[in-house]
Amino acid sequence: MIDADVNIESVDFRVSNPAFAERVTASFARQAFMAFIGARVVTIEPGSCDIELPYRPELGQQHGFFHGGVVGTLADNACGYASFTLAPVDASILTVEYKLNLMAPAAGSLLIARGRVIRPGRTLVVARADVSVRRDDGSEKPVATALATLMLMAGMADEPSAGTRKGGGTS
Amino acid sequence: MIDADVNIESVDFRVSNPAFAERVTASFARQAFMAFIGARVVTIEPGSCDIELPYRPELGQQHGFFHGGVVGTLADNACGYASFTLAPVDASILTVEYKLNLMAPAAGSLLIARGRVIRPGRTLVVARADVSVRRDDGSEKPVATALATLMLMAGMADEPSAGTRKGGGTS
Amino acid sequence: MIDADVNIESVDFRVSNPAFAERVTASFARQAFMAFIGARVVTIEPGSCDIELPYRPELGQQHGFFHGGVVGTLADNACGYASFTLAPVDASILTVEYKLNLMAPAAGSLLIARGRVIRPGRTLVVARADVSVRRDDGSEKPVATALATLMLMAGMADEPSAGTRKGGGTS
Amino acid sequence: MIDADVNIESVDFRVSNPAFAERVTASFARQAFMAFIGARVVTIEPGSCDIELPYRPELGQQHGFFHGGVVGTLADNACGYASFTLAPVDASILTVEYKLNLMAPAAGSLLIARGRVIRPGRTLVVARADVSVRRDDGSEKPVATALATLMLMAGMADEPSAGTRKGGGTS
Repeated sequence: MIDADVNIESVDFRVSNPAFAERVTASFARQAFMAFIGARVVTIEPGSCDIELPYRPELGQQHGFFHGGVVGTLADNACGYASFTLAPVDASILTVEYKLNLMAPAAGSLLIARGRVIRPGRTLVVARADVSVRRDDGSEKPVATALATLMLMAGMADEPSAGTRKGGGTS
Repeated sequence: MIDADVNIESVDFRVSNPAFAERVTASFARQAFMAFIGARVVTIEPGSCDIELPYRPELGQQHGFFHGGVVGTLADNACGYASFTLAPVDASILTVEYKLNLMAPAAGSLLIARGRVIRPGRTLVVARADVSVRRDDGSEKPVATALATLMLMAGMADEPSAGTRKGGGTS
Repeated sequence: MIDADVNIESVDFRVSNPAFAERVTASFARQAFMAFIGARVVTIEPGSCDIELPYRPELGQQHGFFHGGVVGTLADNACGYASFTLAPVDASILTVEYKLNLMAPAAGSLLIARGRVIRPGRTLVVARADVSVRRDDGSEKPVATALATLMLMAGMADEPSAGTRKGGGTS
Repeated sequence: MIDADVNIESVDFRVSNPAFAERVTASFARQAFMAFIGARVVTIEPGSCDIELPYRPELGQQHGFFHGGVVGTLADNACGYASFTLAPVDASILTVEYKLNLMAPAAGSLLIARGRVIRPGRTLVVARADVSVRRDDGSEKPVATALATLMLMAGMADEPSAGTRKGGGTS
């Protein structure tokens, strides 16, 4: 998007919690809705998270394709966990808002959302997600793109033992 | 939002299909994902659609509240079916894009999305959805708001018998 | 948007700075771009701000109507100053993001943006703006709607004497 | 954003009007607001358009940086003209909606918006714009990112001689 030959400040993905991958995995596992639809985290890197979801008829809209709400769910969560990789140990991530463009019918056997942090901040994080479907021949087709704003909640544990029932955590 | 004492062009909700309510109900019933999560249409008026979803633990995020993806799903569908009420008999509705602001944790026993058309058009429709949770004491708390762009697809049936497997329909 | 007969928590517009109107007026006056295009604040209430802009050919797109960027500018600022009315004395307001739907050509002699806070928060504020054009016969036509996220920056003055050249303030 | 080693359908930038660059230049020149703020098109490629704007105090917000409305204007127009490069000779481009994330104060001597088409379509186009400021030392800093939906209006000239006063054209 931006020419490589200009001197643009690169994004600095400082990881403050070395156990970020374990933390993402554990938080994801606590989201009952992810298990309900069958989603799984497949890649966790600093500022980056990919989530996959195999097709099941229960996830369909009226033509049988992945429902737009499922596409949005995966995009939102990919942005959320990409951002969560950069969170300090004592902080949670909240989705403030996201915008989703649905670009093509999500017809395929696997839905893939790739979340990437664009702008890490102390309080606010901006992330992007591209969503594709993989078809039986192994090819991928882009079906949606999202742009999200997330908020780091300092002093709010994502973990249930902290007793923070007032919010926190992705979505 | 706009003062009542100025002469602003009112929104014209011309219904071109008298059986719009039946059509919304039938399309909603074909969306397997709606049955999977337990959502139901509760109100269908010209340019308007309300959808409800009782709480179930499977719909939760890590703190047990309604997952943000579920909130987005209901908002998207409320906008979609509010718009679909205005569609001609031979047209479908596609969600082009939506933006969702998550304003509070969705903690409650019932999730309610109220979709309203703001600007009906021949090709593009703009709709808004407000999402609340109802709590055990009967009170409601706003948890999210969405602004969506929908597209009327002329000559594309929402119904499966037309054989349009290439798209169409809400989401 | 939400039925009046249900018990929904109303929005609480607690004003923490009694001189909010003066503060909005003074901040607006410091925005050189507002004077450059000819915009003026016409109403300031708690959680609410209306901005007007008379038509000038310099503000036009290729057909002579108000340029979309001008429409977005007014919507953004109306949301920003509606939110700023609720800011504590020592806080500024930053626009985090906004989404704008352009619904009709902005053809008229006056552009009017009405910003309203939907959800006041300690850190984040959600606001909406409806933009209309007034025509020579006095009638108004809605041309755009926006949904914005703003951030309260505590301890960051909007005023230049504080020497905060690093940011702060609407937009 | 998407791994290079998977087989994803590439975006096909079919140019249907060989004189696309001239057409963009001419349309831009008809937008009085662009001359008023001092913006200029610097690059026009199929599916791509870069716009620059030198700093002037009149474009400032209260701290003197580029106003958020100016940032949004440039992002919107970069998306619009990136999309316009792909338009047939007899079609115009309308901005349907855009979302803008303001990520850092726009403090610099030059504002640069780089618009890129993500998904070209017969009717709807999705585009993205990244906005940076260039500083006196030649370095660039990202300040905003936008995601936009555009509409191709067939049979609607962008040119004034066609007498289409009802709309059409970017913004």
